[in-house]
Amino acid sequence: MPRPARHITRPKGFHAAGIACGIKTSGKNDLAIVAAETDVPTAIVTTRNQVLGAPVLWCRRVLPRGYGKMRGIVINAGCANTCTGPAGLKDAAAMAGETAKHLGAETEKVLVASTGVIGHPLPMDKIRRGIAKAAGALGTSGDSAALRAIMTTDTREKAGVVTARIGGQKITLAGMVKGSGMISPSMATMIAVITTDAAITPRSLHKALTQAVEKTFNAITVDSDTSTSDTVAAFASGLAGNQTITPGAHPYSVFAKAMLELCDKLARAVVADGEGATRVFEVLVRGARSEADARTAAKAVADSPLVKCAVHGADPNWGRIAVALGKSAAKIVPEKLRIRIGGLLVFSGGTGREFDLRRVRSHLRGKHIRIECDLGLGRGAYTALGCDLSRRYVTINADYHT
Amino acid sequence: MPRPARHITRPKGFHAAGIACGIKTSGKNDLAIVAAETDVPTAIVTTRNQVLGAPVLWCRRVLPRGYGKMRGIVINAGCANTCTGPAGLKDAAAMAGETAKHLGAETEKVLVASTGVIGHPLPMDKIRRGIAKAAGALGTSGDSAALRAIMTTDTREKAGVVTARIGGQKITLAGMVKGSGMISPSMATMIAVITTDAAITPRSLHKALTQAVEKTFNAITVDSDTSTSDTVAAFASGLAGNQTITPGAHPYSVFAKAMLELCDKLARAVVADGEGATRVFEVLVRGARSEADARTAAKAVADSPLVKCAVHGADPNWGRIAVALGKSAAKIVPEKLRIRIGGLLVFSGGTGREFDLRRVRSHLRGKHIRIECDLGLGRGAYTALGCDLSRRYVTINADYHT
Repeated sequence: MPRPARHITRPKGFHAAGIACGIKTSGKNDLAIVAAETDVPTAIVTTRNQVLGAPVLWCRRVLPRGYGKMRGIVINAGCANTCTGPAGLKDAAAMAGETAKHLGAETEKVLVASTGVIGHPLPMDKIRRGIAKAAGALGTSGDSAALRAIMTTDTREKAGVVTARIGGQKITLAGMVKGSGMISPSMATMIAVITTDAAITPRSLHKALTQAVEKTFNAITVDSDTSTSDTVAAFASGLAGNQTITPGAHPYSVFAKAMLELCDKLARAVVADGEGATRVFEVLVRGARSEADARTAAKAVADSPLVKCAVHGADPNWGRIAVALGKSAAKIVPEKLRIRIGGLLVFSGGTGREFDLRRVRSHLRGKHIRIECDLGLGRGAYTALGCDLSRRYVTINADYHT
Repeated sequence: MPRPARHITRPKGFHAAGIACGIKTSGKNDLAIVAAETDVPTAIVTTRNQVLGAPVLWCRRVLPRGYGKMRGIVINAGCANTCTGPAGLKDAAAMAGETAKHLGAETEKVLVASTGVIGHPLPMDKIRRGIAKAAGALGTSGDSAALRAIMTTDTREKAGVVTARIGGQKITLAGMVKGSGMISPSMATMIAVITTDAAITPRSLHKALTQAVEKTFNAITVDSDTSTSDTVAAFASGLAGNQTITPGAHPYSVFAKAMLELCDKLARAVVADGEGATRVFEVLVRGARSEADARTAAKAVADSPLVKCAVHGADPNWGRIAVALGKSAAKIVPEKLRIRIGGLLVFSGGTGREFDLRRVRSHLRGKHIRIECDLGLGRGAYTALGCDLSRRYVTINADYHT
């Protein structure tokens, strides 16, 4: 995905800044603030891991239903503030308080996210000075600096912009994201910030975000590990001039579609930047007994180390796909299963089919790899996105020392 | 594990043979028969994958309850006879029939197992000639030849012998096993044959085998993939002279303990020979809400690619262990969780502890790696066995072509 020239400040009403405050030993940017001009409709989706980073605990405390009106978010990289006990939660609250002071907001109106090493306390002196510096730098051209400040093992800046029209008014949605493994070396990991100038109620924003996350960020897998800090936060300034979006009406579906498109772009960018990844592949499951079964089956294929190695080697190894489906908790009847790679049928009726090996192999060396599995049992469908498993993944994750 | 000089023919009443019939292009042994002198108490445990090899379907047909009286087993390597449709099942039945003819048994009294590439039909002419040749070679010194005939990507001969005393009589249990990934390159994979001269009822044998398998073969993981062909078959000749073992009585517990010890030896040997593995590690979970939760938690840690990479790099990365536990379906309360590596407490009360980094790292470079996780929630306990993830695993599984 080519990075847009401007992203999260493109929707009217948002400022961003990213600065270096000395958490990363490299001296690179490591603290970002994204803020609206007033408290605006905000929705958040956080990790399903049972071990939670202190910033996630803070966000859940100030937005217990997942939505409300907030001023903005402060994010640091280099230290995840996870497994840091009650002191860690106090530090997260202090980050919010310090940022709120500079923004003229209440402490409870600022979200917090942290990414980096687990188990170390935040260097609060550096953070406090960094927040002051970042607050002073807030502006509409701070996008790229903010994005660089939230990156850890990421190798590319990942951001996206989507526009749509509602009742004659153009609305803009934009987002930035960091994440390279579901977990990077001892890091706690995926963070996305989404801004929009659409006028929308907090509850509608939350609904659109939750639905989009389920089909995008929750559909990707680099290494099957779910981080303790995953956070996606969306803010809506309401300055686009459209009539306020509420659930049910047509404008909502336009907005939800745009949100889905944006989250899809961002999620794909994360997989493509997966640790050691050289290829991204889609696993489309349909014909499952239920959507839950479809999801389980698609994830089993996308997570299978053997399928990931086969994709790495451009090997049309349908046996490994069938095995991954069969071991999953999803209901499978081998005789009803049909597997296609790049549109070519490679398995049906319980056995492999004759197929053009060269064509399938060349598909696996291409840009858009599609593995389709029709379970032939019902109407459940789900698409998962995975990346290949390379020697470099092992190098990144084994040669790192705590 | 040093390979014993003789193994599956050590218990009285068993003959074995292994020969080359031309399925493996290398010309190595690829067909084995293990047989008792009469139909003897037999128990079998097969894969939980929903995609089943034809030999597994045959075994389930002739032993629908998992136990009964059988003459022996015929095994080939090089072709798994999996995803081969109705013709595959006919071929499996033909293997049993051909072997039965030479043994003077009924077709339904012979088990079948196949391992190797998925999706190709068996070369039945070679197999028929091979069965005749192997039947002619059956003897008490055929152990090693039989074991070599069932190997695929295995790098070592894996076998074991355990003895025990029941009412003054010495009984012997012996086993051989193949398996190197839960799945090897496009292979369908783990097969173990166990023999004993103990007198035992088929049902007691099945009970002891099932219980042992649950804690041993089902506790190991190389790459989280469950093969379509996994089979463990146990035969009891009854020639040790002990009073016949029935469930409940003391002799049963002696036998069950010996069976557990044998299966543990064999299962550990499989993990140690895992594809690309350089280290084996134990994950002991206790304090779980239930045994099922303990198992889920232990497997999540042993299967986590990041934990496996950390073990490969001898990195005491407790964050990855906590994350793997937290993402699992097992109930975790971070504040109650205690993690020890090599006996040293590295995590408790929701945060990392100070620990002697050099000591823990040297433990991770040693022979017996122990990761202990006390969930502090109940009495459920389970121990899983995993191996590290190395660049060689990717090489083995990516550079292979269908």
